[in-house]
Amino acid sequence: MSSSPQTQALSPAIVFDTLQAYQRTVALRGAIDLDLFTAIAEGNQSLGAIAARIQASEKGTRVLCDFLAVMGLLTKQGSGYALTPESAAFLNRHSPAYMGTMARFLVNPQTAAMLEDITGVVRRGGAESDQGALEADHPIWVEFARSMAPMMRMGAELIAKMFGAGSRPMKVLDISASHGAFGIAFATQNPQAKVVGLDWANVLEVAKENARAAGVADRYSTIAGSAFEMDLGSGYDIVLIPNFLHHFDAATNESLLRKVHAALSPGGIVLAPDFIPHEDRITPARDAMFSLQMLGATPHGDAYTFLELEAMFRNAGFARSELRDLSPHPQRLVVSYK
Amino acid sequence: MSSSPQTQALSPAIVFDTLQAYQRTVALRGAIDLDLFTAIAEGNQSLGAIAARIQASEKGTRVLCDFLAVMGLLTKQGSGYALTPESAAFLNRHSPAYMGTMARFLVNPQTAAMLEDITGVVRRGGAESDQGALEADHPIWVEFARSMAPMMRMGAELIAKMFGAGSRPMKVLDISASHGAFGIAFATQNPQAKVVGLDWANVLEVAKENARAAGVADRYSTIAGSAFEMDLGSGYDIVLIPNFLHHFDAATNESLLRKVHAALSPGGIVLAPDFIPHEDRITPARDAMFSLQMLGATPHGDAYTFLELEAMFRNAGFARSELRDLSPHPQRLVVSYK
Repeated sequence: MSSSPQTQALSPAIVFDTLQAYQRTVALRGAIDLDLFTAIAEGNQSLGAIAARIQASEKGTRVLCDFLAVMGLLTKQGSGYALTPESAAFLNRHSPAYMGTMARFLVNPQTAAMLEDITGVVRRGGAESDQGALEADHPIWVEFARSMAPMMRMGAELIAKMFGAGSRPMKVLDISASHGAFGIAFATQNPQAKVVGLDWANVLEVAKENARAAGVADRYSTIAGSAFEMDLGSGYDIVLIPNFLHHFDAATNESLLRKVHAALSPGGIVLAPDFIPHEDRITPARDAMFSLQMLGATPHGDAYTFLELEAMFRNAGFARSELRDLSPHPQRLVVSYK
Repeated sequence: MSSSPQTQALSPAIVFDTLQAYQRTVALRGAIDLDLFTAIAEGNQSLGAIAARIQASEKGTRVLCDFLAVMGLLTKQGSGYALTPESAAFLNRHSPAYMGTMARFLVNPQTAAMLEDITGVVRRGGAESDQGALEADHPIWVEFARSMAPMMRMGAELIAKMFGAGSRPMKVLDISASHGAFGIAFATQNPQAKVVGLDWANVLEVAKENARAAGVADRYSTIAGSAFEMDLGSGYDIVLIPNFLHHFDAATNESLLRKVHAALSPGGIVLAPDFIPHEDRITPARDAMFSLQMLGATPHGDAYTFLELEAMFRNAGFARSELRDLSPHPQRLVVSYK
């Protein structure tokens, strides 16, 4: 049973660390649930003060804070802790960019269960079914709309600045509107923009709530139902399709894109922000890894590369497509021209 | 709801990625269960050949292989895949250093459940109870012995070469023997070494099996029971205490170390390999992060620093202690002198 000389120089650390990686998710979810980052933001930096504020033992607080410091979500000075720029911006509940809600969607039992049968998922090549997630009014999309809005709002603002600036009249359709952030950003950016949000009726309640909060409710109307079945209307300058095409196979996407093509004005464009890996499918890491989530969550979805998306748009009649960077928002954008 | 200029320059990627980190564990566990690394080791490098060998869809195989390539556990050339030095050594079932069994212990529902109530664990400062894991003959330690032996064997061989070389008569006690690897390595290294393994009776069956396989059964005897309660014997040159002290609080460890001190010959030493973070408790990452696992799994355990362990040994009567590197084995070693 002794190892070869070659093997002896190698460390199994990557195997051990990967099998333990789930603890990173557990630790961050726990810290968000305990509102630990907010406690530190409020000035509690010593172990005793943090523990008292989150109503936890000093030992448990110490172990959790150290774990977060190892991951780069806190800094440690002596026995005290401080927020990093990222945890101050995104994990302190008092920050306008607070994103702790993401944990509710990304790490709930329903989401995690999608990957529990990983061997079955890989064997079949996808989820056994969409578990009703694509049926009308499934509650998971209300949870998505409420939980993921803060991260998506960052991308929405960037896109609206790129394509919505100015004050010319503009008609925008937001397919799979969800929280409404993408469409609302256009209405906020351009006082002449009129926005139509399309989604299930229960989800649209969240979008309308956000449109009211943004002061653009008078220019925000809705279509309740499936994008594949409803009349989309016509004469749009811009159709937003955010984080939607990854749920379906290419043929299904092409059938939707043909409808979208018909609904666009001449010179109109589609804007589709998404996780889009390079053609090697292994970079950038985040986009590439997203394909596993789609494998576990959908029967036929995927994290499509730009060339795959470009072919779908071309087959649906679009003249040309291009890919744009959205950093620091961690997604990329396909722009396709009618 | 708009973000401040400062926030706009920051990316929430670290938050998103950490909430998705559990998928790394899921993907590796899935690949081990499907024996994907062995399939590639046997010469299947194209997607079609790998998928056929693991009886999975090409799409699922592609997504999983890409995910493993992102993590550095495969390399990708065009549409084909190859093992890395680490996956060839540790994840190919035909390799003598195969460690895929680790997934069974590190990622089973029982282990993962320890952290499900992460907020409760942090609030209390430990597990509500040891869930019987420290009671006689709990099956979890048979699973540990069978699953974790391959990784521990690497550390055991290093330690036996450091302290067991030669052919002088040597009496070794292995407390919490488990798979027996640490004691057996001394018996293999030194033909005059006599080894006593102490553990629960059911676990010792695994150790004895391994001693027979290593051809040292005639110099391997056992004490079945609790190290805290049993008579340890006397006259030992070396007492091994591998991966054991992290389960208990300092006072409990000191009571054991006093018994060990009495059982050692003059000039005898204790060898305690473990996860041992630096005094800052946030480096090295693996050792530091292990404290969260102990918080979730035990009421009073911890990943102790060297200074904490040194104090326990000193309070139990030991003259001095030192810390040694064990790389490439991903743990470190405390050596304490009677």
